[in-house]
Amino acid sequence: MTAGELVIGLDFGTDSVRTVIVDAHSGEEIASAIRTFARWKEGRYCDPAGNRFRQHPLDHLEGLEATVREALARAPTGTAGRIVGITADTTGSTPGPVDRAGTPLALLPAFADDPDAMFVLWKDHTAVGEAEEINHTARAWSGEDVTKYVGGVYSSEWFWAKMLHILRANPRVREAAFSWVEHCDWITAVLTGTTDPRTMKRSRCAAGHKAMWHASFGGLPPAQFLTRVDPLLDGVRDRLYTETWTCDVAAGSLDPEWANRLGLRPSVIVGVGAFDAHLGAIGGEIEPYVLCKVMGTSTCDMLVAPLEEMGDTLVRGICGQVDGSILPGMLGMEAGQSAFGDVYAWFRDLLTWPVASLGSRAGISDDVLQGLVDGVIPALSEAAASLAPDARAVVALDWLNGRRTPFADQALEGALAGLRLGSDAPRVFRALVEATAFGAKRIVDRFEVEGVPIRGVIALGGIPRKSPFVMQTVCDVLDMPIRVARADQTCALGSAMAAATAAGVYADVPASQRAMGCGFETEYRPDAERAAVYRELYGRYERLGQFVEDQFTPRGR
Amino acid sequence: MTAGELVIGLDFGTDSVRTVIVDAHSGEEIASAIRTFARWKEGRYCDPAGNRFRQHPLDHLEGLEATVREALARAPTGTAGRIVGITADTTGSTPGPVDRAGTPLALLPAFADDPDAMFVLWKDHTAVGEAEEINHTARAWSGEDVTKYVGGVYSSEWFWAKMLHILRANPRVREAAFSWVEHCDWITAVLTGTTDPRTMKRSRCAAGHKAMWHASFGGLPPAQFLTRVDPLLDGVRDRLYTETWTCDVAAGSLDPEWANRLGLRPSVIVGVGAFDAHLGAIGGEIEPYVLCKVMGTSTCDMLVAPLEEMGDTLVRGICGQVDGSILPGMLGMEAGQSAFGDVYAWFRDLLTWPVASLGSRAGISDDVLQGLVDGVIPALSEAAASLAPDARAVVALDWLNGRRTPFADQALEGALAGLRLGSDAPRVFRALVEATAFGAKRIVDRFEVEGVPIRGVIALGGIPRKSPFVMQTVCDVLDMPIRVARADQTCALGSAMAAATAAGVYADVPASQRAMGCGFETEYRPDAERAAVYRELYGRYERLGQFVEDQFTPRGR
Repeated sequence: MTAGELVIGLDFGTDSVRTVIVDAHSGEEIASAIRTFARWKEGRYCDPAGNRFRQHPLDHLEGLEATVREALARAPTGTAGRIVGITADTTGSTPGPVDRAGTPLALLPAFADDPDAMFVLWKDHTAVGEAEEINHTARAWSGEDVTKYVGGVYSSEWFWAKMLHILRANPRVREAAFSWVEHCDWITAVLTGTTDPRTMKRSRCAAGHKAMWHASFGGLPPAQFLTRVDPLLDGVRDRLYTETWTCDVAAGSLDPEWANRLGLRPSVIVGVGAFDAHLGAIGGEIEPYVLCKVMGTSTCDMLVAPLEEMGDTLVRGICGQVDGSILPGMLGMEAGQSAFGDVYAWFRDLLTWPVASLGSRAGISDDVLQGLVDGVIPALSEAAASLAPDARAVVALDWLNGRRTPFADQALEGALAGLRLGSDAPRVFRALVEATAFGAKRIVDRFEVEGVPIRGVIALGGIPRKSPFVMQTVCDVLDMPIRVARADQTCALGSAMAAATAAGVYADVPASQRAMGCGFETEYRPDAERAAVYRELYGRYERLGQFVEDQFTPRGR
Repeated sequence: MTAGELVIGLDFGTDSVRTVIVDAHSGEEIASAIRTFARWKEGRYCDPAGNRFRQHPLDHLEGLEATVREALARAPTGTAGRIVGITADTTGSTPGPVDRAGTPLALLPAFADDPDAMFVLWKDHTAVGEAEEINHTARAWSGEDVTKYVGGVYSSEWFWAKMLHILRANPRVREAAFSWVEHCDWITAVLTGTTDPRTMKRSRCAAGHKAMWHASFGGLPPAQFLTRVDPLLDGVRDRLYTETWTCDVAAGSLDPEWANRLGLRPSVIVGVGAFDAHLGAIGGEIEPYVLCKVMGTSTCDMLVAPLEEMGDTLVRGICGQVDGSILPGMLGMEAGQSAFGDVYAWFRDLLTWPVASLGSRAGISDDVLQGLVDGVIPALSEAAASLAPDARAVVALDWLNGRRTPFADQALEGALAGLRLGSDAPRVFRALVEATAFGAKRIVDRFEVEGVPIRGVIALGGIPRKSPFVMQTVCDVLDMPIRVARADQTCALGSAMAAATAAGVYADVPASQRAMGCGFETEYRPDAERAAVYRELYGRYERLGQFVEDQFTPRGR
C-alpha cells in the first residue's frame, strides 16, 4: 500500500454518466463530473407509449471521455498520475448486439440509427411475450429448472427475452449480431481494449441475475433449452461466454489508446464491471443479512449471506441468487418493487390533471403550474404525516407497474379500497405510501419464509434523502430500524471501492468498505404503536392483493 | 270541473323551499318563488364530520310563508282567488320531536337551539348503531318479520333509528317529546291547523317506507317489538298513528290563520303530504313497470306496479314496497344509490386538492380556483367520453357512501382496481362513471330477479339535464332507452298534480298526470357494441364488489 493512491468510480445511470475521483485510502471525493446522455435526453430511439427504451453507445462513449477529462481538470495537479484503478457500473439488464470485433452494431454506419442495434435499457418492456415463452418453456423442460437461481420466474426486463425479441423483430440486426454484451461488460472491454466478445470479462452479477448463468449449469442454460425456446437462438450460446468474474477482479489494464483519450496512465487497472445497484450496495456498506434497499422510482433490494451458511437454500420468488454477484465470496440475492416513487408520481400527475389541462385557459402560467407540480408531494406528505395510522383507513395496492417481488408478475395491477366520500387526497396518499411500505415488507417476508433472516436495513437512493415521511412509514411497517447511507453517490463510491480492490490496494471488498465508507447520516426507529396498527392493515393489504392476483387480473393476451 | 282553477305545489328540498303556482288543467306554471333555508345555509346545528344534519322548523315556516307570498305577488291579479288546492312534499325520512300540541320542540324557547329538538334530515347518519340494533332485534324476533316490507334491512337514515338515537342521547328532549312527526306530515298539519299528533294525517309513503307501517301489521310494528329494541320506546306507538293516507286524499282545508298569513282563501284544500322523490316521480309521469330514477348526489329509484299483479311478491333488498306510496292504488317500490353525483364530486375534490391547498400561496385567486373546480367535471367528462369502453380498464366500486340497494349496507366502501401508471384522471373518472352506472344496473337486476319486470326508464333530477356522458353510459350499461323528463321542477309539479287531485279537479292522479304532464325532452338509446363491453366489465365490477362485501369490510364497532 502506498499513500496517495486514487481510484475512479464510473457510474452509468439511466440519464447520465458520472465520474468520481476518490482517495483510495480515506474514501474522500477529490473531484467529480457528470454528463447527461445527449441523444437520450432528446428522446431519440425511444417510444414511451410502447415501452421501448434504447440507448445509443455513442452517448456512453462521449460521456465517458468527457466526464473523466472534466473530473481530472477539476482535480489538483498531479491527480492523473496517482490514479491506480478504474471500475464502471451501469444499469442492467441493458444488453446490446455486437459484431465479431465486439463493436455495438449502432456504432457501425449501417446501423447508426436503428434502435434495435443499440442497448436495450433495463426498463424497456418490449419483450413481455418472449419472457412468457421462456417461462413456458422452462416449465415444460425435462432437465434442471433453468430459472431456479433467478427466483423461478424469468422477466421481460432481462437479457434473453430482450435478445430474442430483437432477433425476431429485426432480420438485419439478427444477421449482423455475432454476440451480445451487457452494458457494464462492454464498458470494461472498451477500457481494456478487449475486442473478442468471447473473451470479454463478463460480470458475474449480470450473468447470474439476468442471463441464468450458474456454475452448476456449466455456464449459461443448455443450448438445447435455448433452441427449444426459439431455433433463432441456435449457436448463440457458443458466441457468448462460460466464465464470469466478480467485481474485485482486475479485467486488465487500460488500453493505451483510451489511456491517451482519458489522460490516464496505461498502467491503471480496470476492474470487472457490475450493475449500478450492486456497486451502490457496496458503497452503501452492505453486510451479511442486512437488506440494502435502493429506493427511487422503483426499488432494488439486495441481500448478501455467507455461502457456507446458505448451503443449498433456494429463495423462491426473488430476482435471483448468485455467488459473488454483490460482494465477492458471498451469495448475492436481489429483489425489488416495480414501482415505488413512481406510485407517488402517478398520484401527483392525477392530482395536477386539472391545472395541467385547464390551467392555461384559466390564466395560470407554466411557472405556477410547475410550482404546483413540484409542491404536491411535499404538501401531501406533510398533510398525511399529521394523520394517525388507522387500521380501517383506505388500503392501496402498489402494483401500478406490475410486481417484481415476490414472484414477478407484470400483469398485476394496483388498487385502492376502503374509499369513503371523506377519503381526501392526503388520506389516499397516505394509503399509497403505506402500500409501497407493505410491498417492502413482502420482500422481507419472502426472505424470512425461506429461512433467510433480515437483521437490519440500509437505505440508499433519492427517496431516503428527501422523504422522511415515507422512510418513517417503511420503518414502522417493517418494524425495524433503517439506516440511511451518508454518501451522496453510493454507486460511484462502490465502483471506486471495487477499483481499489481490483488494483490491489485492498485484499478484499469489505476491507475497502471499512476504509473508504462514509457511514450513515440518519437512523429511523420504529414506533411500537404504529407498528401494531400496520400489522393489522398489512393483513388487509394482503387480502386485497390475493383477490387481485387470484380473481381479478386478466390473463393471456 | 271549472276552468281557471289553479293549484300550489310546495317542494321542501334539502337546501331550500320552492312554491310553484300551476294551472290545474294545462299544467302551465303561472309563477314560482324559492327561498334558501337561512339557518341551514349558515351550517348551524350541523356537524358534517360527524354526519349530523339538523334543520330548524323556523327555516321551514319562514320559507313557506315567504315563497307563497312571493309567488302570488309575481302572478297575475286574481290568482289567489283561483287557487283550489295545495300539497307539500319534503325530504324524508326527516323526523322531529313534537309536544302534545304538535309543536316541534325547537319552536319552544327552551329548545330553540338544541339540534336534537329539530328535524333530523334524511342524510343524517348519527343513528347507525340504532339501525344495527333494530335489525338485530328483527332477526331475533319470533313474530312476523317487521322489515319484510322495507327490503329486509332497516336503515340508519330512517324514522325509528333516528328517534331512538335522540331519545337515548338527549334526556331533556326525551322528557318533552310527546310524539314524533315526519317533516311532510307536519307541514300538512300546520296548513290544516291540526294540533294533535295522533290525528294528523300521516303520509302513507313516509310511514310505509321508513317507519315499517303496514296494513297487515295493523299499523306500526308491535309495541312489544319496539320495547324489545329499547324500553325507551315504551308507549311511543300509542302516541303516533295507526292510519295513513295517500297523496290523492284531502287532509282538510286551510287553517284560517295560515290562509291569512299566506294570502289564500280558507276554502283551499290541503292535500296529504308526501316525500319529494315520490311526488317527483308523479311529476315525471311515472307509470307501471317504468323505473323512475331521480339522479343527483344520490339516486332514488321508484317503481309502481298494479297491486293485483304483484300479489304476495316480496322484493328483497330494496328500500320498501308500500301500497299507494307513490301512485295511489299501486304498489310503490323504492330503491336507490347512496352516492351517485357525490362520487364525481369526491373525485373533483380529490383532484382540486393541490390548487385548494397550495393555490393561494402560488398566487392563484379564489375566482380562478372556483373556475377550476367548476370546470373539472365537464373537462373530465369530455376527455373520458373520447375513450372507448375497455373490458380491461380501471374498474371502480361506487359504494363511497355505503350501499342503499341492493341490501342496504352502510359499512361498505368504494374501491378502484386495475390501476396502472398510465391510469390518468380521465380514465379513473370514466371508471367512476361506469361504476355508478353498474350500481344502477344492480337495482334493475334486483327487481328482475324477484320477478318484477322493468319495461322502461325515466330520468329526473340534476344529472340527466347536465351530464350527457353520464346518461349515455347508464343507458349503455342498462342496455335500455332512458327518457329524460322535460319538466324543470318535477317535485313541485307532482305536488301540484296531487293537490289538483285532492281538490277534486281529477278523479285520480294518473288523470292529473295526463292533463298536467310536460312529457320528455330527450331519449338516450343504447349502443350495442358498448353494451357488450359493459356486460364483461360488469362481471369484474361484481367480482370486486363481492370481495369487498365478503372479505374486506370491517364489521362491528
